[in-house]
Amino acid sequence: MTKKTWNVGIAGLGTVGGGLLQFLNERPDFAPVPGKVVVAGVSARSRTRPRSVDISDYPWFDDPVALATDKSVDIFVELIGGSDGPAKAAVEAALKAGKPVVTANKALIAEHGAELAVIAEAHNAPLLFEAAVMGGTPAVKMLREAMVGDEVDEVAGILNGTCNYILSEMETTGRPFADVLAEAQRLGYAEADPTMDVGGFDAAHKISILAAFAFRCAPTFSAAEIEGIDEVELLDIKLARDLGYRIKLVASADKTDEGVAVRVHPSLVAQGHPLAETPGALNALFIEGRRIGRIFIQGAGAGAGPTAAAVAADIADAMTGASRPVFHGPAGELRPFVALPPTARVGKAYLRMLVRDEAGVIAAVSETLAECGVSIDSFLQKPVEDAGGVPIVLTTHATPESVLMDAINRIERLDAVLERPRLLRIARI
Amino acid sequence: MTKKTWNVGIAGLGTVGGGLLQFLNERPDFAPVPGKVVVAGVSARSRTRPRSVDISDYPWFDDPVALATDKSVDIFVELIGGSDGPAKAAVEAALKAGKPVVTANKALIAEHGAELAVIAEAHNAPLLFEAAVMGGTPAVKMLREAMVGDEVDEVAGILNGTCNYILSEMETTGRPFADVLAEAQRLGYAEADPTMDVGGFDAAHKISILAAFAFRCAPTFSAAEIEGIDEVELLDIKLARDLGYRIKLVASADKTDEGVAVRVHPSLVAQGHPLAETPGALNALFIEGRRIGRIFIQGAGAGAGPTAAAVAADIADAMTGASRPVFHGPAGELRPFVALPPTARVGKAYLRMLVRDEAGVIAAVSETLAECGVSIDSFLQKPVEDAGGVPIVLTTHATPESVLMDAINRIERLDAVLERPRLLRIARI
Repeated sequence: MTKKTWNVGIAGLGTVGGGLLQFLNERPDFAPVPGKVVVAGVSARSRTRPRSVDISDYPWFDDPVALATDKSVDIFVELIGGSDGPAKAAVEAALKAGKPVVTANKALIAEHGAELAVIAEAHNAPLLFEAAVMGGTPAVKMLREAMVGDEVDEVAGILNGTCNYILSEMETTGRPFADVLAEAQRLGYAEADPTMDVGGFDAAHKISILAAFAFRCAPTFSAAEIEGIDEVELLDIKLARDLGYRIKLVASADKTDEGVAVRVHPSLVAQGHPLAETPGALNALFIEGRRIGRIFIQGAGAGAGPTAAAVAADIADAMTGASRPVFHGPAGELRPFVALPPTARVGKAYLRMLVRDEAGVIAAVSETLAECGVSIDSFLQKPVEDAGGVPIVLTTHATPESVLMDAINRIERLDAVLERPRLLRIARI
Repeated sequence: MTKKTWNVGIAGLGTVGGGLLQFLNERPDFAPVPGKVVVAGVSARSRTRPRSVDISDYPWFDDPVALATDKSVDIFVELIGGSDGPAKAAVEAALKAGKPVVTANKALIAEHGAELAVIAEAHNAPLLFEAAVMGGTPAVKMLREAMVGDEVDEVAGILNGTCNYILSEMETTGRPFADVLAEAQRLGYAEADPTMDVGGFDAAHKISILAAFAFRCAPTFSAAEIEGIDEVELLDIKLARDLGYRIKLVASADKTDEGVAVRVHPSLVAQGHPLAETPGALNALFIEGRRIGRIFIQGAGAGAGPTAAAVAADIADAMTGASRPVFHGPAGELRPFVALPPTARVGKAYLRMLVRDEAGVIAAVSETLAECGVSIDSFLQKPVEDAGGVPIVLTTHATPESVLMDAINRIERLDAVLERPRLLRIARI
């Protein structure tokens, strides 16, 4: 607490990096711990590209690794992005030099977190990444610090603002996925290559990080079951609404005696449920603890302001000199979790199928479901124009996923069924 | 991080103390920081009173101050309660001995927080009190740590579970305040002397603590404007519902250029708003930051499990060796905030009055309001049996409180008006 100046090196000067520079210019003394935060150097791919912040006064480093290890730097901030390459090299170099690292890089932590934690703890250097999950909404801090006096059974939420924006727009405006995505790209809400977001990978990175804290294990991204929103059809959004649901990209991690399941799926959430009432680019998260019960948190998940504020909060944390493991226990003892096979999931489901408009179809489908042991909860048949058949949709009671798959395979083979039934999960939370 | 054993002294063995003992028995190695947490000694008013946990194996201290300063104790946990007396004496003694203190005592922190922070920082001893606000839901951590990269304009929420339970029950069951309170006392949800809760003082303690973090000042409990729920009538709950609202005890703190307003009032919250949808004993909080935007958090606000978990989280934080000021900046620089006078509030209001069932009454009331400059938003007249008159209720557009008071005084003097109009505020959030 006696240090007067904390020199920060910032690598990566995109939206978040620009937001952070602007914040540190305005409020160098923001931290509760006495001392000013000063930008000791910056690094990015291009020095000359137009930016909202003037960077000409900051010492420039072509190589982020050189910045990370420069003796002028007390705390290294990595905002380059990407799970490998220069981001990883610079973070490793800073940690090996014993410098605290603050990063917003969810891919890096989800894919290499355990390995980086070993380096961090060997060199007694904090590795902080609040901004990697839910932007300014402190999901990491809650699980890392506030829930240590509890055992967490489940975390589930909406962790990708781009997907939530697209799904909300599809529902509100009745426009199909491709249209809304194109508009989101024009407005800067979606990347030119939207795969990380709409493919569910970004949400999977984030829930993998939260699962590591929740279940005291190494982040195990490779075990995540991932389905994006790129195949969500307007028809399903409408039918789900008629059944009392909204479709959201739900990321969840839950633990049973058999293992841990980390999943990202477009899922039906009952209208009125707080996740269903999380519109636009907002993020939201449930944490279910045995002692604390259920905590719900909702807030901005991205954007320059919120994310830069989360980076600043981590810088302030590093200034306190707190010494704690990166994850939930010494890095050397972290193990990947035992993944529950996807077919072991038991849950309610939504099945939509296109059938010929003829007598006996519903009977045939119902019989097949009964034979498989799938019990129907609700049923909806609705004429839809230009659908080339009659869509019927049903929801099931809780059913093992292996049983559902068997039923879907059998229904697909029925003569009157025109295409493979579309399966969407109904969220458990 | 090299310490093998952390010796904790616990003073106060009520619900939370018992829950903590049980937790530490089950999970002495709960903290992510390596090391076991061991109970080095306990103190309470009575050693022999029946308890759910056997305390015969722990060293006993009659005097909590002796426990707080005993050389066997590394971390002192104060769960005695009360803003003065033994709780304050023991906390001061522990801090003066340089020992980290963890407390759930909202009254102590709200009324003497600034003074205790000076002692804590002079002796380099952390003073942590997550459990003082919202039990296991980490409101303090959010404002103290996660929001430091932001400027907070407003915090508002439901911070007293007992009041929320009583109001929810009144609405659901249609029973009056006194009935529901008596039942809550039987069930152990309310204290034998319920004044702290139903009088709004507990919520005022909590919002005063949050305001200190939000606005970087000393907790200033004496400046809080406090109205409890003991005069909330069933009639108002019913009329509010007809107008699309629910009555909740809302604690809020907001800052303008003129000053800070810390208020606790039974308030109308629009149905569908997350605070209106916070039932039973749950707590909920909005934090409005300039960069991060609006964060909403909801969870259990009290109870042995959640509160003990929050105390445990603070113990784990103390084990990290983090060195940060108790509030938002060095204690010696903390100042009470400038309080905005209550009459300066501008907001929408609900007015309910009992009038004679005769022609011209509504005209007289409307004219009086118009003369005072109060603009009516909605109006409801509803026959109510046995009311001894006709209740009329109206909501206003945003109006300065001084203007409202003038209007209420004038309406009270009208011949056809049978009693002083009842004012309830409509929540701004």
